[in-house]
Amino acid sequence: MTDYAKAFQMLFQSPLEPIYTCRDNGKCIFELPDSHYMECDSGVKEMLQERYANSEHIRFALQELPSKPDLSFADKLSVKQNFSLFNTLHKEIAGKLIRLLMEAEDLDNFLSLCVYSRHRLNAMLFQYCYSVALLHRRDTRDIWVPPVAEIFPANFIEPSAFTKMRKALQFKGNKKPHVQIPHNYTASDREIEQRLAYFREDIGVNMHHWHWHLVYPNSGTREIINKDRRGELFYYMHQQVVARYNLERFSNNLARVVRFNNLREPIAEGYFPKMDSLVSSRAWPPRFEDTRLSDLNRELDQINLDVSDLERWRDRIFEAISQGFATDESGNRVPLDEVRGIDVLGNMMESSIVSPNRSLYGDFHNMGHVFISYSHDPDHRHLESFGVMGDSATAMRDPVFYRWHAYIDDIFQEHKTRLPPYTLNELGYDDISVTGVQVSPEGGRPNVLQTFWQQSDIDLSRGMDFVPRGNVFARFTHLQHTPFTYTINVNNNSGAQRFGTVRIFLGPKADERGQGMLFKDQRLLMIELDKFIVTLNPGQNTIRRRSTESSVTIPFERTFRNLDVSRPAAGSAEELEFNFCGCGWPNHMLIPKGLPEGLRCELFVMVSNYDQDRIEQQLVGTCSDAASYCGVRDRLYPDRRPMGYPFDRLSRAGADRLVNFLTPNMSIVDVVVRHENRVVLRNT
Amino acid sequence: MTDYAKAFQMLFQSPLEPIYTCRDNGKCIFELPDSHYMECDSGVKEMLQERYANSEHIRFALQELPSKPDLSFADKLSVKQNFSLFNTLHKEIAGKLIRLLMEAEDLDNFLSLCVYSRHRLNAMLFQYCYSVALLHRRDTRDIWVPPVAEIFPANFIEPSAFTKMRKALQFKGNKKPHVQIPHNYTASDREIEQRLAYFREDIGVNMHHWHWHLVYPNSGTREIINKDRRGELFYYMHQQVVARYNLERFSNNLARVVRFNNLREPIAEGYFPKMDSLVSSRAWPPRFEDTRLSDLNRELDQINLDVSDLERWRDRIFEAISQGFATDESGNRVPLDEVRGIDVLGNMMESSIVSPNRSLYGDFHNMGHVFISYSHDPDHRHLESFGVMGDSATAMRDPVFYRWHAYIDDIFQEHKTRLPPYTLNELGYDDISVTGVQVSPEGGRPNVLQTFWQQSDIDLSRGMDFVPRGNVFARFTHLQHTPFTYTINVNNNSGAQRFGTVRIFLGPKADERGQGMLFKDQRLLMIELDKFIVTLNPGQNTIRRRSTESSVTIPFERTFRNLDVSRPAAGSAEELEFNFCGCGWPNHMLIPKGLPEGLRCELFVMVSNYDQDRIEQQLVGTCSDAASYCGVRDRLYPDRRPMGYPFDRLSRAGADRLVNFLTPNMSIVDVVVRHENRVVLRNT
Repeated sequence: MTDYAKAFQMLFQSPLEPIYTCRDNGKCIFELPDSHYMECDSGVKEMLQERYANSEHIRFALQELPSKPDLSFADKLSVKQNFSLFNTLHKEIAGKLIRLLMEAEDLDNFLSLCVYSRHRLNAMLFQYCYSVALLHRRDTRDIWVPPVAEIFPANFIEPSAFTKMRKALQFKGNKKPHVQIPHNYTASDREIEQRLAYFREDIGVNMHHWHWHLVYPNSGTREIINKDRRGELFYYMHQQVVARYNLERFSNNLARVVRFNNLREPIAEGYFPKMDSLVSSRAWPPRFEDTRLSDLNRELDQINLDVSDLERWRDRIFEAISQGFATDESGNRVPLDEVRGIDVLGNMMESSIVSPNRSLYGDFHNMGHVFISYSHDPDHRHLESFGVMGDSATAMRDPVFYRWHAYIDDIFQEHKTRLPPYTLNELGYDDISVTGVQVSPEGGRPNVLQTFWQQSDIDLSRGMDFVPRGNVFARFTHLQHTPFTYTINVNNNSGAQRFGTVRIFLGPKADERGQGMLFKDQRLLMIELDKFIVTLNPGQNTIRRRSTESSVTIPFERTFRNLDVSRPAAGSAEELEFNFCGCGWPNHMLIPKGLPEGLRCELFVMVSNYDQDRIEQQLVGTCSDAASYCGVRDRLYPDRRPMGYPFDRLSRAGADRLVNFLTPNMSIVDVVVRHENRVVLRNT
Repeated sequence: MTDYAKAFQMLFQSPLEPIYTCRDNGKCIFELPDSHYMECDSGVKEMLQERYANSEHIRFALQELPSKPDLSFADKLSVKQNFSLFNTLHKEIAGKLIRLLMEAEDLDNFLSLCVYSRHRLNAMLFQYCYSVALLHRRDTRDIWVPPVAEIFPANFIEPSAFTKMRKALQFKGNKKPHVQIPHNYTASDREIEQRLAYFREDIGVNMHHWHWHLVYPNSGTREIINKDRRGELFYYMHQQVVARYNLERFSNNLARVVRFNNLREPIAEGYFPKMDSLVSSRAWPPRFEDTRLSDLNRELDQINLDVSDLERWRDRIFEAISQGFATDESGNRVPLDEVRGIDVLGNMMESSIVSPNRSLYGDFHNMGHVFISYSHDPDHRHLESFGVMGDSATAMRDPVFYRWHAYIDDIFQEHKTRLPPYTLNELGYDDISVTGVQVSPEGGRPNVLQTFWQQSDIDLSRGMDFVPRGNVFARFTHLQHTPFTYTINVNNNSGAQRFGTVRIFLGPKADERGQGMLFKDQRLLMIELDKFIVTLNPGQNTIRRRSTESSVTIPFERTFRNLDVSRPAAGSAEELEFNFCGCGWPNHMLIPKGLPEGLRCELFVMVSNYDQDRIEQQLVGTCSDAASYCGVRDRLYPDRRPMGYPFDRLSRAGADRLVNFLTPNMSIVDVVVRHENRVVLRNT
């Protein structure tokens, strides 16, 4: 019987090597039916038969396909091109491949079809669509999708590490080899944006972003795209990224990021990614300082767009916001109201088949990425591929990502500020009061969060092509914080058991000039740390919650660990929980870096009425632990409130500061985030 | 007894792998004395002893060095940096290493010192200095220096070829594997400069340039630098490159290259090299269109120079030309006269210790390369290395190379135009007349030269690191021409045997607008095709000369062939001749591409009086076959006349066109260069 779990994993390994090479450190081979071979494989079959005739390899014998699938839809994306989800043509191709993979009748058929496609198509296209299919097919629920950094490590790791890894694999003795990934290698401290490099270039942060777009594809079948509150989640996840980025900027004595709202203005920030795309054998192109956007005319990518097209789409989106409704393709009004408005707007901004009107509102967010990513070669005269902004796995490395998303968010906020402020009724929770809040880091002082640098090892060898087999660990340096516990005292005066949703946010106490902040500004900088449901017994309740349980993050082990080795036994309850989604903010980035002298923050805690929050659904076994930014697979978003509540709107009259905004079921406490500039090796 | 030839060759292989790895397809190892190991090698020695204890490898047991050499002078060039001969700091470091290697007492000592240095130093630095030392040490005359493309193939080959090569080495059957090097991959035809890519990116052209700077280093011992007519040869070789480039431009319906003479003006031409530097694990940075030079302040490279420094040096060079003398460091006048002027000027321009006054005339040519190569990151804020203009192995790929050298040449011509025109006496040769000239391509029509595309295989596997051993051929596409023969009829009316130097040039018949050219313009476009000595018997002489014998080129086999396999037996006379210098224009580029309808040219032939040309020296066995552009190793330049004679000066009064310029010992014939756009695979 075919060990499907194993077979499907093998398809992730060595993505650029031909499928007929040995996998799993030389232990497995695929046996291809004749129809899988291509003309250019002539002689390969015979060579393989000879080489493996009597070998003891585990064999995955593939089924002959009922009919040869027609993959000609993918002809316009050659195997050497970079694949971009922001590119309309590529999206269409991906959509067709996803559909094809989703429609495969059974597992044997699906496996064979995957191998057939993998052997013929662009590796990045295939791996993306393959992952989407695994995540969305009913019969592959239990198949593990490895962290993307293991599939395409070159998209996450500085290239000298690969040379070192090749060397380590050739000359390792008995010790477990590891190589250092350079830290802070893209710019010097002359470039002030470099202070944020640890955030922009964090492997976990970029993996989260890639995974988010894998879970919320904008091409494929309608069923896959049209997820519950997809547009709103697009808004919220990116809003939080910008808020988090701004807190990191405060942690580095920098002011909030400046919106890129004038598309005619040169982009001051240059970015030299110093990364290679192995698929195209090309380095990711840099962007020099003060590069301007230019009209695009790239035949290969089927992009012929002017900067003024972008401007028109934006102006129409603003017009819809000002009018309070969008216009759909039949000319009907789609209200941008309190309930669905932000979701509609999100789907207009991150355009897909669920956009209310693509010809009117265009494809603003994606095309912004595209314009920026081609600014070095707008007419393809230099045969250059897109820069890092063109790929969700790499976009967050570039300072301009945050300038672009600050602008995107600004447009969303234009809508949000038009909604009526939450009333006391909408905010309060009768008889429930929060009487005390404290955070306690392990072995540290209360209300003083601590950050430092950590070095961790990750195993990337399976994503490397044409190397001797074996494990080699890449040691990278990232921000980390001391784990901490929230202690929240809640008084339930109702005399009955009640349920509440605890919502925890962190925000800066002062702006970049050291001035206290108005609610209207501070709300945009509140980052969600956690959200969970509690049972409140009558009287005094003490709630304890660990930072590692956060509903926005996934644990370090999920982000990086070689799950193939350490994951729980197949079929166990733990495995089911483990299986889903690398989507989730990396836990090591939960807290901003802070300052050596301490970044002054306010920790906000609210207990809202669960009766008004709840969604009737079963969540057990769905891996919902990063639900705040990622939602829950095949489920509704598990919170009825608008995402970002209660900070997604302006405050009611009179509540111009956070302290005035509080109702009894809320509380704030001053917290300091202190950074210690030391490097600690993670225990492995 | 140590097979030194073999041992020295092994040092060229896999330049980035540690020296203790097997070489020569796994057949050889070096045995290092204890002092050669570094601290970071801990455990390696034991591992090697175990691995090779009873192996049958050929062993090169290295001598312990009398004392540990102090290599701290090289500390400022890390192993990961790119090495540039245009960089003053790197030049100084290279000079010291060359001196150290030159001073090694005997071959054993030299070999051991080389291994010791190779194990510690930047690979490009080492390979350059090692090659210089091999070429210049008396006791290593017979050691072959392989083509640089075999040592650092990444500097010459598009990187996807390497992925393909890795694959080919892993999956080759019994056939000789070869991979295609993409042709015309750096830009599309929207970029008109791309029409010249086959010239700029030709592997042989770039190898020639690298080798020229290897033979004429500007750092090291005075003896190495201060070669006969070094400055003049710098002028002439580069003048010819610009002339050849302009002929290629005419062959592509483009006008002559525009001098980059305003250093404040943006450089219109962008260039995206799409090449990787394996030493630094970085791609060569591109230059966007319209990039300007900026003042340089790069601490790492110890470069702190303003554009105005360049301008001042240039103005002082012009001043020296206008005054007719330079001023040396003691304040004495150094005349810029007919005899030595151009050589002095060349040494001012390509500054070295033989420059008459480095503080006054600076380092104009080299620093021009440096300014251009750092224009994307002038203050090192982005931690970027130099672009292709910063390395002699890659500089000729960039369109701006020719704009820069057109300006350099313009300055030289400012001097040349001040010299008195050659008199009839200086040009003529009494009693000698050229009565007929014809060129006959094999199997073609007389006076119609034919060009086409050819594909040739070169073996690059020895320069690849961390790959399975074996040969793999890279198939690249280059310009080629049908070999042809000159037939020259010369009448000797002197009644006695005479000797003459035959000088053959090719130039365009019309300018870019189709207008006939004045001598003063056409002379700058005359490319030297050949120069050789003939014996003239009394009466009619018919001279036949094959294009493959050209004194400016080296044969295709010398440029590329795996000499290791095919070269003549050790110690044979052929080997001695074979051994020296890869310096020489590649024969496949002897003739410009021409046009499908034919590029109209004039072939000029002159027989000058050998009594006035000759240099008294022995040339047998010196590999002088590319002497015109490269000189002869350890010999004087084998032609007493100014380089470029008779086209290096303006013409005498009245001789405003080439036809009026002729004396009886000269002749011209109309020639057409016809290009056929077909690709032919070279017989191998």
